[in-house]
Amino acid sequence: MTAGLTDSLLIVGSVAFDSIETPNGSVDNALGGSATYSSFAASFFGPPRLVGVIGADFPDEHRRLLADSGVDIKGLVTKPGQTFRWKGRYHQDMNTRDTLEVHLNVFAEFDPVLPPHYRDSTHVFLANGVPGLQAKVLDQVRHPKLVMADTMDLWIENQRKDLLALLPRLDGLLLNDSEAHLLSGEDNLVRAGLAVLRMGPKFVILKKGEHGAMLFSGDGVYVMPAFPTETVVDPTGAGDSFAGGILGYLSSDGSPPPGRLRRAMAYGTIVASFTFEDFGLDRLRRTTRSEIDARLDKYRHMLSF
Amino acid sequence: MTAGLTDSLLIVGSVAFDSIETPNGSVDNALGGSATYSSFAASFFGPPRLVGVIGADFPDEHRRLLADSGVDIKGLVTKPGQTFRWKGRYHQDMNTRDTLEVHLNVFAEFDPVLPPHYRDSTHVFLANGVPGLQAKVLDQVRHPKLVMADTMDLWIENQRKDLLALLPRLDGLLLNDSEAHLLSGEDNLVRAGLAVLRMGPKFVILKKGEHGAMLFSGDGVYVMPAFPTETVVDPTGAGDSFAGGILGYLSSDGSPPPGRLRRAMAYGTIVASFTFEDFGLDRLRRTTRSEIDARLDKYRHMLSF
Repeated sequence: MTAGLTDSLLIVGSVAFDSIETPNGSVDNALGGSATYSSFAASFFGPPRLVGVIGADFPDEHRRLLADSGVDIKGLVTKPGQTFRWKGRYHQDMNTRDTLEVHLNVFAEFDPVLPPHYRDSTHVFLANGVPGLQAKVLDQVRHPKLVMADTMDLWIENQRKDLLALLPRLDGLLLNDSEAHLLSGEDNLVRAGLAVLRMGPKFVILKKGEHGAMLFSGDGVYVMPAFPTETVVDPTGAGDSFAGGILGYLSSDGSPPPGRLRRAMAYGTIVASFTFEDFGLDRLRRTTRSEIDARLDKYRHMLSF
Repeated sequence: MTAGLTDSLLIVGSVAFDSIETPNGSVDNALGGSATYSSFAASFFGPPRLVGVIGADFPDEHRRLLADSGVDIKGLVTKPGQTFRWKGRYHQDMNTRDTLEVHLNVFAEFDPVLPPHYRDSTHVFLANGVPGLQAKVLDQVRHPKLVMADTMDLWIENQRKDLLALLPRLDGLLLNDSEAHLLSGEDNLVRAGLAVLRMGPKFVILKKGEHGAMLFSGDGVYVMPAFPTETVVDPTGAGDSFAGGILGYLSSDGSPPPGRLRRAMAYGTIVASFTFEDFGLDRLRRTTRSEIDARLDKYRHMLSF
């Protein structure tokens, strides 16, 4: 799990147009998707390799935006048809949302084939997707050092067998609190996380939104609060930014293991805290690595007593 | 806010018999109440002075239990009639509960008069109660160095004027997330905490149950997760144990301010984590200061990265 000079991060997931309504404003067809957010978040630590699918309607300007952030987009395939579109509305408290529209479009036929130079990637993030497809991506990576996957309630309920087959192949599984309850049948969050850990992954990261995250591994249970912020403009992509920050950090840092995963989670927490502060990628685009490091220092101080 | 050799902690609140049902078991007429839990929690750091009222049915064995823990019970007044009784049932997730029965009994006429030697107390915890009564207690303390009060939705809704008059007299206000929303009208927790801070107290501690707590003060915003535990037998009294741990620590520690309030909250968090682990006071009764310190070290390690 240490990072070397030739370490490289592969990210596989969705690239989408998001239309978002919040109590404070709205945005139409903003660049989004799990692979987009996690790649952007990871790019602060090193250049990630993105695998995704887009339609003929995907503008060059978005392609450039990704490339200019250092994201390798040779794995971003264009197919005839339209790009994945999602529309959602956040409730007053900003913690819950309703999905108003989903048009999978070209994402419905997503069958990721890694470009040859991607197959040597050492770190892999399988963003939320069909577990069978996540496994198929993994089959194409020669010698992964660290693989982390995200999942969701839909797969826990409808693709449970494939998901359970995938878990022992993972280093880390990322899921939120309600998904952990659903997967484990346990009400208590600590029991739920430990039960998921026994299903095969080397570590489990349980996301609790505004309440932070928990880490379960052979080293025990750790908790990490979210970075407290007054400015919550748009929570879309925060979970994927968290994941991208974690993997970006892990693939760029060669320090010894004790505490490294927690440090990665702290970086993920901070990158996610910027994502919140404006619509879509707008805040993340304006963020610098030194801004991230400064907020990380503030966060570390906040947790010392 | 520093503690001296003659510092002493006054705790005013309820002493009750609790009947508790949880998914894992139940208990009838266990010794409880806000003043009981917070006094027990504080007693690990020094002998607190308790003010409360009980009925003729209060057994000597409970009085001894308190006194044996170092609690000064000269302010525990016996009145004709029955002791305050509460009955509640926890839901499956242990985070929410229904109140099934409340019999205020002698607590309905609670009109605390401090024994003379209590009036020089330097630290004061006004457990949840009618704000007008909390103010009346405060009037009787000569030169308090640090006063913290708890409150609840009932007073925010029905005794708002008295509560707002009390706030500028407080050093700290303790309230939970839904109460902070109710008092401030703000949805975002950080904004809610800051809005309550502007109402007059020097600091605000916002309790989030299993998700920990936040601190708002002139030094900014701090977050602190709960100590993660698999063993949640009975959450009753956890909030009051948290408060008692905070005040107990503050009245016993003379170290300089930066970080002292956070350290106090960490101690409160740890004492509360023991309260959870058995019914009523059962786990707290078996807890030692060295157990608390060992868990605090574990918690500190958990939060470093």
